[in-house]
Amino acid sequence: MQEFKVKFSEHVKKLQNQITEKMQDLDIEIELIEDVWSREDFNNNPGGGGITRAFQGNTFENAGVNTSQIFGDIDPKFAASLNGEGSQLWASGISLIIHPHNPKIPTVHANFRMIEQGGKYWFGGGADLTPYYPYEEDFRYFHGVWKAACAPYNCYQEMKVECDQYFTNYHRGGEMRGIGGIFFDHFNSGDIEKDFAMVKDLSSHFINSYFPLVEKRIKESFTEEDKDFQLHRRGRYVEFNLIHDRGTLFGLKTKGRVDSILISLPGTCKFTYKYAPKPGSAHEKMMEYYKPQEW
Amino acid sequence: MQEFKVKFSEHVKKLQNQITEKMQDLDIEIELIEDVWSREDFNNNPGGGGITRAFQGNTFENAGVNTSQIFGDIDPKFAASLNGEGSQLWASGISLIIHPHNPKIPTVHANFRMIEQGGKYWFGGGADLTPYYPYEEDFRYFHGVWKAACAPYNCYQEMKVECDQYFTNYHRGGEMRGIGGIFFDHFNSGDIEKDFAMVKDLSSHFINSYFPLVEKRIKESFTEEDKDFQLHRRGRYVEFNLIHDRGTLFGLKTKGRVDSILISLPGTCKFTYKYAPKPGSAHEKMMEYYKPQEW
Repeated sequence: MQEFKVKFSEHVKKLQNQITEKMQDLDIEIELIEDVWSREDFNNNPGGGGITRAFQGNTFENAGVNTSQIFGDIDPKFAASLNGEGSQLWASGISLIIHPHNPKIPTVHANFRMIEQGGKYWFGGGADLTPYYPYEEDFRYFHGVWKAACAPYNCYQEMKVECDQYFTNYHRGGEMRGIGGIFFDHFNSGDIEKDFAMVKDLSSHFINSYFPLVEKRIKESFTEEDKDFQLHRRGRYVEFNLIHDRGTLFGLKTKGRVDSILISLPGTCKFTYKYAPKPGSAHEKMMEYYKPQEW
Repeated sequence: MQEFKVKFSEHVKKLQNQITEKMQDLDIEIELIEDVWSREDFNNNPGGGGITRAFQGNTFENAGVNTSQIFGDIDPKFAASLNGEGSQLWASGISLIIHPHNPKIPTVHANFRMIEQGGKYWFGGGADLTPYYPYEEDFRYFHGVWKAACAPYNCYQEMKVECDQYFTNYHRGGEMRGIGGIFFDHFNSGDIEKDFAMVKDLSSHFINSYFPLVEKRIKESFTEEDKDFQLHRRGRYVEFNLIHDRGTLFGLKTKGRVDSILISLPGTCKFTYKYAPKPGSAHEKMMEYYKPQEW
């Protein structure tokens, strides 16, 4: 297993660099803060750490592209709620979120991780899109990339349904936070070499699933109403991340670095009592996409 | 007990009207949406309801002053986590939150409730202030009103400490969301008449604890930096309400009305990676007040 742990950690760092470069290409004045951090485990022994990259730019209002490799003891109570056995954990992954200024460009989130607990490994991850304007062709493009990426493994349908179910604000009557994508967790076929190759392959499609949409919409104008809708939908994004997101919970429970975890929150957002888009607007149409559908 | 349930419900509705009038006096063009709602209990039988008042104005960016009286069956799993016995619950209360535009005026939250489960009653509630500018005299004023209100019951010190402990973002290294106030829960001395009189009396001090501060600061100018600090602190307010607040959880678990519960969120807010106020600024000084201290 050790070999794949090393390889996976190398892979996510490489991906972090590739995504960073792509963002810098598209937003040449973007400001990047890199923080290399380390943590202690539950019993205050060295427990690994990570590389957090926080971005603020003209195209990308705020973004985080983080990797981490953590290990050591975890809270035994929390350990019992996980997939493996014992209270020693090893985890490596990339987690990223990009919130563009322009409401015509969707927000994106992706995450790929390898976890080992008590000699048992599993993989998890996925990518999901949160658009704010009803450009159906963009949604089809995003899902199309993932459909093609999943084709060799025949896993799109299953992972798409998991994504629909996971990224949902159940307290808001089952409204999805976006239009989904793919999501998987606790993935272990028993063949670590095959599983590693699959996750590595899937994750390598992220760049092509998202950045062409940025390039396509980067120069589009938008109205105050477009912005207002986006800010309110970002409010729902905050609700999801703080109420439902297991990754956020995992981070806080494993003594993660709070600033790196909550980098997922949008730079600005709004909450209004009974907010609803204008009848007949593009935004009202957009609301229809925040529910499971075939692409 | 029935007599006190009726009296308590009447009291909170009267208080709701008094607070509404006070807000309308101070913000004459304020827009008020009143929604009278009803709910079904866990087994889809009639389960009471409430009166939600949502405000948007020039002084008060957004505010909610809500009352509710709910009853009926609750989720048995959730019932077991409460104070009484059985899975029938009755609850009545007022809950309010006021987010002013001007960062020189603090945000305030208050809540007073009576609960009955399986023949056992208890009261809970309190008021806490979230200022954004280091006007220490205002903080002393707020705590002074509650100190005086609590004096006949000799309860200030205990309730003040509970408040400090409760309104804390533990995931942010124990930073309080504001400067506290008073907080109590599961209050039952065995003498319902005395307990009711105390909670009625305490709650009647809310108006005098807060609105004089609004009147004092309402015309003060503020800078962009003042606003930026306020918006970031409101971000922490959102984190508290969605991660830690038991009232929010209680509402969502008892099939509460989501729009009425999440009315507590600020109209606008900001999140920035590793946000910190400018060294030497009033805002940096303000940060020192977000920890327990004697008033």
